[in-house]
Amino acid sequence: MRRVLLLVEYDGTGFAGLQRQRPGLRTVQGTLEEAIARLGGPPKAVAAGRTDRGVHALRMPFHADLPEAIPKERLPAALNRHLPEDLKVVGAEEVPPGFHARRDAKSRTYLYRLLVREAPVVLERNRVFWVRPPLDLEAIRAALPHLLGRHDFSGFAVREEREPLRTLLEARLEEAGEEVRLVFKGESFLRGQVRGMVGALVTLGRGRLSLEEFARILKGGRSPAWAPPQGLYFLEAEY
Amino acid sequence: MRRVLLLVEYDGTGFAGLQRQRPGLRTVQGTLEEAIARLGGPPKAVAAGRTDRGVHALRMPFHADLPEAIPKERLPAALNRHLPEDLKVVGAEEVPPGFHARRDAKSRTYLYRLLVREAPVVLERNRVFWVRPPLDLEAIRAALPHLLGRHDFSGFAVREEREPLRTLLEARLEEAGEEVRLVFKGESFLRGQVRGMVGALVTLGRGRLSLEEFARILKGGRSPAWAPPQGLYFLEAEY
Repeated sequence: MRRVLLLVEYDGTGFAGLQRQRPGLRTVQGTLEEAIARLGGPPKAVAAGRTDRGVHALRMPFHADLPEAIPKERLPAALNRHLPEDLKVVGAEEVPPGFHARRDAKSRTYLYRLLVREAPVVLERNRVFWVRPPLDLEAIRAALPHLLGRHDFSGFAVREEREPLRTLLEARLEEAGEEVRLVFKGESFLRGQVRGMVGALVTLGRGRLSLEEFARILKGGRSPAWAPPQGLYFLEAEY
Repeated sequence: MRRVLLLVEYDGTGFAGLQRQRPGLRTVQGTLEEAIARLGGPPKAVAAGRTDRGVHALRMPFHADLPEAIPKERLPAALNRHLPEDLKVVGAEEVPPGFHARRDAKSRTYLYRLLVREAPVVLERNRVFWVRPPLDLEAIRAALPHLLGRHDFSGFAVREEREPLRTLLEARLEEAGEEVRLVFKGESFLRGQVRGMVGALVTLGRGRLSLEEFARILKGGRSPAWAPPQGLYFLEAEY
């Protein structure tokens, strides 16, 4: 056996989230672990992050142990033969035996996609959050710098017992036609944090939250809204 | 009753093509006609073009007759209440009583999306044609001008008894990261023509068809390949 880092793309629509749960529930981790077992590895894959039901990933890193007999360059194809069309390994590299995909990650980057238009969204219905205009993008841009740095982000997150201080390294907005892309890079994130930040930013962009109220969420306040899962993508982690 | 032009977006994945067929087969036209009947119109909708199973549309025009009691600006929402999530009306306008969505269209524009990368396509699997690199885009660009103008396009089309001379007005290639977008605007198209043109262009870009052989398809030859339906989108028609 040797340890490998697998980069996995998945469509979250058909999964009950990333984390393995009770048998019979289709999860990203459980599906990947079954494919690893088919190649003779121990059925254990550890992800850099955690995504909820309906959330997607473009390059989610997992570490796993796999037999040395399979050359590194053949690993993606070998695993993909046992994986469904909505979950595939898109890259693989060898890492030291003690490597840990979650603990060793220095940063994670998430993308959130909004589609701003009057007409309902059809082709992208499981890929974006449909927002009716008007949405004040300049107001959202002005709010983003408030999120940067080390803060208590628990007002944007699912309530749970975890260290609430997190460091956000980047927050930016890109426009492409009807689409608005919000990109967040942080050392780590609380559960639900990106959806809570986007929910608050969209509320602000609709004129129903002031910049002061937004900033107060970091000082013991609570986000007024959580954006739906289908617009969220785990983009990548850095080691 | 008055005649309206409806612009329809649909995800072709779950439809057996656009054209109404035998009862029980789910088609774009049949689904739209049911919604029209629910609003009290005659169950007849005529499209500007025809798309096969798995082909998508962003703004497919249909004409139909609907009761005058429903204001124009309420029509999309009124129809959408009776339409499924993979087929929605995204625009509506009033047109003269004799207006015909197919006969009056001066041009149609199609988009074909390729995703050029080593790794299998997951999130976009029903939206693009996955092509493994290398693909010589300069060779494809050099071939596009040969298609412009009035030609016998039957070598790119499904064999059927129709006038084979068609006029192509625009053919262009755009790159965006891993994605290659081919856009074709023509007065009208033969059935299967865009997929036949893209199949030949990809074969050429893979170095398995020369520019001479490509040009010969317009002189009584036959395309070596047809690109799959999920990469094809009807973009719009002009009147």
